[in-house]
Amino acid sequence: MRDVSIIGIGQTPVGEHWAKSLRHLAYNALAAAMHDADVTKVDAIYVGNMLSGEISGQAHLGALVADFSGLRGIEAVKVEAACASAAAAFRLGLMGVASGYQDIVAVLGLEKMTDDVGSKLTSGLASAADADYETVHGVTFPSLNALIMRRYMYEYGVSKEDFANFSLNAHANGVNNPYAMFQRPITKAVFMGGGVVADPIGLFDASPMADGAAAAIICPTSLAKEYAPKPIRIAASALATDSLSVHDRKDPLWLQAAEDSARQVYKQAGLNPAAIDFFELHDAFTIMAALSLEACGFAEPGQGTRLAVAGEITLKGRIPICTQGGLKARGHPVGATGLYQLVEAVQQLRGEAGENQVSNARWGMTQNIGGSGATVVTHILTNQG
Amino acid sequence: MRDVSIIGIGQTPVGEHWAKSLRHLAYNALAAAMHDADVTKVDAIYVGNMLSGEISGQAHLGALVADFSGLRGIEAVKVEAACASAAAAFRLGLMGVASGYQDIVAVLGLEKMTDDVGSKLTSGLASAADADYETVHGVTFPSLNALIMRRYMYEYGVSKEDFANFSLNAHANGVNNPYAMFQRPITKAVFMGGGVVADPIGLFDASPMADGAAAAIICPTSLAKEYAPKPIRIAASALATDSLSVHDRKDPLWLQAAEDSARQVYKQAGLNPAAIDFFELHDAFTIMAALSLEACGFAEPGQGTRLAVAGEITLKGRIPICTQGGLKARGHPVGATGLYQLVEAVQQLRGEAGENQVSNARWGMTQNIGGSGATVVTHILTNQG
Repeated sequence: MRDVSIIGIGQTPVGEHWAKSLRHLAYNALAAAMHDADVTKVDAIYVGNMLSGEISGQAHLGALVADFSGLRGIEAVKVEAACASAAAAFRLGLMGVASGYQDIVAVLGLEKMTDDVGSKLTSGLASAADADYETVHGVTFPSLNALIMRRYMYEYGVSKEDFANFSLNAHANGVNNPYAMFQRPITKAVFMGGGVVADPIGLFDASPMADGAAAAIICPTSLAKEYAPKPIRIAASALATDSLSVHDRKDPLWLQAAEDSARQVYKQAGLNPAAIDFFELHDAFTIMAALSLEACGFAEPGQGTRLAVAGEITLKGRIPICTQGGLKARGHPVGATGLYQLVEAVQQLRGEAGENQVSNARWGMTQNIGGSGATVVTHILTNQG
Repeated sequence: MRDVSIIGIGQTPVGEHWAKSLRHLAYNALAAAMHDADVTKVDAIYVGNMLSGEISGQAHLGALVADFSGLRGIEAVKVEAACASAAAAFRLGLMGVASGYQDIVAVLGLEKMTDDVGSKLTSGLASAADADYETVHGVTFPSLNALIMRRYMYEYGVSKEDFANFSLNAHANGVNNPYAMFQRPITKAVFMGGGVVADPIGLFDASPMADGAAAAIICPTSLAKEYAPKPIRIAASALATDSLSVHDRKDPLWLQAAEDSARQVYKQAGLNPAAIDFFELHDAFTIMAALSLEACGFAEPGQGTRLAVAGEITLKGRIPICTQGGLKARGHPVGATGLYQLVEAVQQLRGEAGENQVSNARWGMTQNIGGSGATVVTHILTNQG
């Protein structure tokens, strides 16, 4: 198996791109990543996307993106795993290079959510849950997460206020990220005063829908130095699944696939959680941030919010999370989010994270979650040889 | 790169499965393939599917299939490339094993088209074309193919009757395939008398929509003998793309991605077209069969229908095609079709094709086409060492 590194990254700002279609967003991110890697062609493109068929009437994104980006003819496919689509695509691109089938590969996360003329967004997002056993009862993703959060508060005796710092930290970090959808800090009063989305989830617990595309160029580590002054190694990669339905789980408060994939990447990289310098986690809702920290070994069960309360998740804390704003402030273009996380991890490991730089960052972990935890993709990246 | 072989196959009958949902079809095919390979677990599942989000409100098929099949927790993802989804998933599974990331992998093609309560099927299928430049004008897949067929007839001076044998051959072979949707032969009079779908495409030029699932289990060739008495080697694999829109092509009558992927597999396997013993091609419409034969070097441009007219495509002809009924008679559950083709090729190469056995079959080629030719995935399988 060939060792693989990231030699280029690119991203569009996250937000409402009324003047750009799917193909323009894809091209913008891809061209930026190829420019960053100083390559003019790639062997293949892996596109992570969740909703384009439903929202834009456009499936078949592999061929679309290759064609519109001036790369007509090359291998290109779409990979889907709900909100974990982009990291899943990244992992398959990694296998393409590791296998020797491809040398230079582009991986793209792409989503356009805001010009949903047919109002299919809520039903489209709900298709990540179990259509026959969850969605049929009218449950949506905010309501599923609300049920989980309410149970967590009851079970562990924590209050809504205990989740505040997840949101405050994300917004504080978003301020310095020019690609973030929201670049303003918020206060605890603002957090607590946000309107109710699905009780106990408020406006500032929930990440925003958005348009965006992010891309990375990868190649064998043995070739990486030819293209990039600071290639970033993919030290570990894992994808695990869980039951599609929340009610089928032994414990609805435990992200088993997050634990399983984290265990695998720790083993592959020969690390434990204490060695991770920062963690780009999947804060689609604040409750997911808490559960992800627990499942990955950064906190005991029920103690995830304490890390936030104690300030341990900030840039100077024990385990900085969402260092460029996370899903909450950078925005959550669902099928693209996993690539934004990876791009931001590369920025940290290159020392190019500006005001948000984590000092002496050597090992960065990313975790992209699909559905209510049914697919979890975890990676560890490093600037170490 | 590790050499990879197929050690198990499974399929459901193709047809209208009113009493089975997506998950049941998936389980039935997967369980059959695992039984055939005599394995009780796999490292990963790759699911090829096109329409489940649109038709069934169910995305996130990787986790769904793993969970419902008793394999909760394992790696599982969905791959989409329009009607070429299943072969694309097969190719990515191949890379997973070739890379060493996985040893035993299940690849599944899955589609449920018939209980389309929201009448989204035509728009769903059209999402494989270019939403901004083709679909917006009201074009559907039958009409796109009709435009291509009409142009072909004009350009090369062939008649509708010249396409008849593609349909007759498919239906003749479907008779002996217990999994085929249509198991009755047709006559030329029936072909010519079929109602018009989109002139000049008639009912018997067009493959039927259907439900179905087909699966294969693959592993490193070095391990294959432990599981299967007759493992079938994947001798070559390639995926190529073309412009998404037909009007963007230099020649609308030439499947460039079919040519490109065929050239690659011939090179990988060290073969030329004359060495291919049978060809499971993508006869979604009879015109596609003609174009595929031409692009892959079995006929000169404009001469594809002559192979049919001369009877060279039958089981005893120079290049047998659609040996178990093809898309026309076996049926075309779009995102599953590529796996049906591969399963049928394995049947031939094992010598288990019954009445439809191609004598002395050693090298079989499969070609799965997405959209109007924008994604083409071609494989060569063999029973030779």
